[in-house]
Amino acid sequence: MNSQLSCFIPVPAHSDFTIHNLPYGIFSRCKEGERRVGVAIGEWILDLAALEQAGILRLSEHECYFNQPNLNKFIESGSSNWHKVRRELQALLALDNPRLQHDAALQQQVLYKQQDAIMHLPVQISGYTDFYSSKEHATNVGCMFRDPKNALLPNWSELPVGYNGRASSVVVSGTEIVRPSGQIKLPEQERPVFSATRKLDFELETAFIVGKPSRLGQPIHIEDAEAHIFGMVLLNDWSARDIQQWEYVPLGPFNAKTFASAISPWVVTMQALQPFKMQGPVQEPRPLAYLQENVESSYDIQLSVEIQTPQSDSADVICQTNFKYMYWSMAQQLTHHTISGCNVNVGDLMGSGTISGSTKDSYGSLLELTWNSTTPLNLANGEQRSFLQDGDTVIMKGHAEKDGIRVGFGEVRNTILPALSFDFAEAVQVQHETV
Amino acid sequence: MNSQLSCFIPVPAHSDFTIHNLPYGIFSRCKEGERRVGVAIGEWILDLAALEQAGILRLSEHECYFNQPNLNKFIESGSSNWHKVRRELQALLALDNPRLQHDAALQQQVLYKQQDAIMHLPVQISGYTDFYSSKEHATNVGCMFRDPKNALLPNWSELPVGYNGRASSVVVSGTEIVRPSGQIKLPEQERPVFSATRKLDFELETAFIVGKPSRLGQPIHIEDAEAHIFGMVLLNDWSARDIQQWEYVPLGPFNAKTFASAISPWVVTMQALQPFKMQGPVQEPRPLAYLQENVESSYDIQLSVEIQTPQSDSADVICQTNFKYMYWSMAQQLTHHTISGCNVNVGDLMGSGTISGSTKDSYGSLLELTWNSTTPLNLANGEQRSFLQDGDTVIMKGHAEKDGIRVGFGEVRNTILPALSFDFAEAVQVQHETV
Repeated sequence: MNSQLSCFIPVPAHSDFTIHNLPYGIFSRCKEGERRVGVAIGEWILDLAALEQAGILRLSEHECYFNQPNLNKFIESGSSNWHKVRRELQALLALDNPRLQHDAALQQQVLYKQQDAIMHLPVQISGYTDFYSSKEHATNVGCMFRDPKNALLPNWSELPVGYNGRASSVVVSGTEIVRPSGQIKLPEQERPVFSATRKLDFELETAFIVGKPSRLGQPIHIEDAEAHIFGMVLLNDWSARDIQQWEYVPLGPFNAKTFASAISPWVVTMQALQPFKMQGPVQEPRPLAYLQENVESSYDIQLSVEIQTPQSDSADVICQTNFKYMYWSMAQQLTHHTISGCNVNVGDLMGSGTISGSTKDSYGSLLELTWNSTTPLNLANGEQRSFLQDGDTVIMKGHAEKDGIRVGFGEVRNTILPALSFDFAEAVQVQHETV
Repeated sequence: MNSQLSCFIPVPAHSDFTIHNLPYGIFSRCKEGERRVGVAIGEWILDLAALEQAGILRLSEHECYFNQPNLNKFIESGSSNWHKVRRELQALLALDNPRLQHDAALQQQVLYKQQDAIMHLPVQISGYTDFYSSKEHATNVGCMFRDPKNALLPNWSELPVGYNGRASSVVVSGTEIVRPSGQIKLPEQERPVFSATRKLDFELETAFIVGKPSRLGQPIHIEDAEAHIFGMVLLNDWSARDIQQWEYVPLGPFNAKTFASAISPWVVTMQALQPFKMQGPVQEPRPLAYLQENVESSYDIQLSVEIQTPQSDSADVICQTNFKYMYWSMAQQLTHHTISGCNVNVGDLMGSGTISGSTKDSYGSLLELTWNSTTPLNLANGEQRSFLQDGDTVIMKGHAEKDGIRVGFGEVRNTILPALSFDFAEAVQVQHETV
């Protein structure tokens, strides 16, 4: 445990980015600027590409790992390098190390204020899978949309239910989200209508990033699964509930989710999260053998959702929950993902599914918080929300804290833009009528 | 129409690879050899990388488009290049052109026998989506697994139902398929068991490859949709029916499909398919405006499935159908895919869904052909099949033919290997018992 580590760079109280964390991200100094690997420390970014160039952080004589537009090459280089870089950066930042601390010129080359940098997607995401591993969330959804008496489907307790998501539309925090349009079915009408979604929602999730590939036809053993994980991010799995309800039977959600999924820019490594490991919930029935774990595999990570409307001066916290409530672990998710032979690649993103706790203030979506609009949320400034309105900003935060050590994710933050005006559909309509 | 084109390379009767076709693929001369772009002509491959190097086929002074491990760079270069290369190759291969025809040394450099080459995945697939657009298939499945009286779900006739597939496990024809294992639920047991699938099935599909990207938040207009498509391949969407039935509610198929999806190695361009364009089925109800088309958008492509067992001397044709039966067109699929704002990338693969006709011999899966094992298939040598057995080979073929012009896909062919022996699961079991 590195509980005695002190950093020469001042780290504000309650900062997520302590010397115990050192999350990786991709930044540039201007919008079209060159993308590089950086590490967050306090309010700063340590530029690993510059450290590499200066010969201070070198993994190989000839290869650049950090002057890269994503983390994939570094991640692919393997876990011994992940450990090495963490050790070297903790040493370089340590209070007792003069190397960077007493070299103002070097500091100028390798340290940037986070507020001056632009963050990008940290990894090239080759595949995106989203699980559904919160028992509370699955039960809530089952109550609302299926049968309250049998809210949890029989397969849910036997396997970590998941589905393939759309990787192309995973975006980084800060990206504005255009309200999606599509087919929705109103109860009073026989046919669906084309409309902007009236039920735009967030889903509070975390996601892990695969760090070590597996081969087609070769499942990952449950005991090896964590070694295949590089780190975690926050994930807002944006959802259009009315589109979803009309389209999702029998093949699952599609347009309702593929318009955007947003992640936080800093990847917190599994090494940084080790102090916060804990036992997950008891699994009853006991899973089939291939899903059985012998070790602690959950994490104590506090999560919250805030909403800020255009009319409010500050954000309202509308959900507080914890990753530790997740029924299925990341190791179980990954093993199950590969059990029939599916291969995974470095950069694959695997979402937890919405993380809801057992109390109403811990539900991870507006669908649950407002029970599908039946109990709207009252915000501090007097406004109400059932689902999101244009201009609303959703902010998700997450951090772990124990024995004076804090390791956090920063945030994923997105603002809603109005729907497209769709002369699109009308143009076709008109044209067709006149042919 | 190029109906008068003659090729100096002899093209056998009934060859899919005429001068009217010129499909693109990625080949190498040995297993670990360098991958390059080639075009199939008769029994030969024309090596475009060699033609580019020799200065005979150049798209740019400085860039190599064909000395590449996949088609993506060429496809990204745009449709004017697709047209240019097609024109130049048709001219180079024409009977009245001496350039290659009378240069034996050049022929040696640029022509390889297909039987001596190894074919690879033609594109780097950034996303894989599978639709469900055959009315006959959706009706058959609905009859078997849901309600025969309401086999087609209400959304089916309103939108091209689709779901995100798993891109990482898309493999090329020739890849051996390991029988997948996973959770299956036997009717007589309360809990699922871990088992190799007992219901391994194929799905006869075609797929199109996206040739022009779209931006996040910017739907593709139905009239522009075909211009975003580069070409088509055959697709066998391998399926484990028992795993699927247990897992698929509510988020769709996952392990049952992610173990492998196989495509034919030659990408037939939309240009080559133009002569076979035709009107698709009448759509009733008339689709919402954004899905309405003013032009013919189906294709007359004959498709078949053959099965060869280890005991038989030759393959049995067990399905004959046609792409023209598809209810939703590729343009409608692509427009619907992007309608809520999802972006597509060059190299995205979009499967049609199983293509079944209205008669029993035209069903595109064993699930339908044997009505979920109730009417097993009788093969010519006396064997029966309900689902696939280890050692079976499934061969899918497809071609279009009209006015003496033939344009075909070749085949997608895979053989089933036995399931893994899974000391995997047992090891965990034993270990856990002794802790």
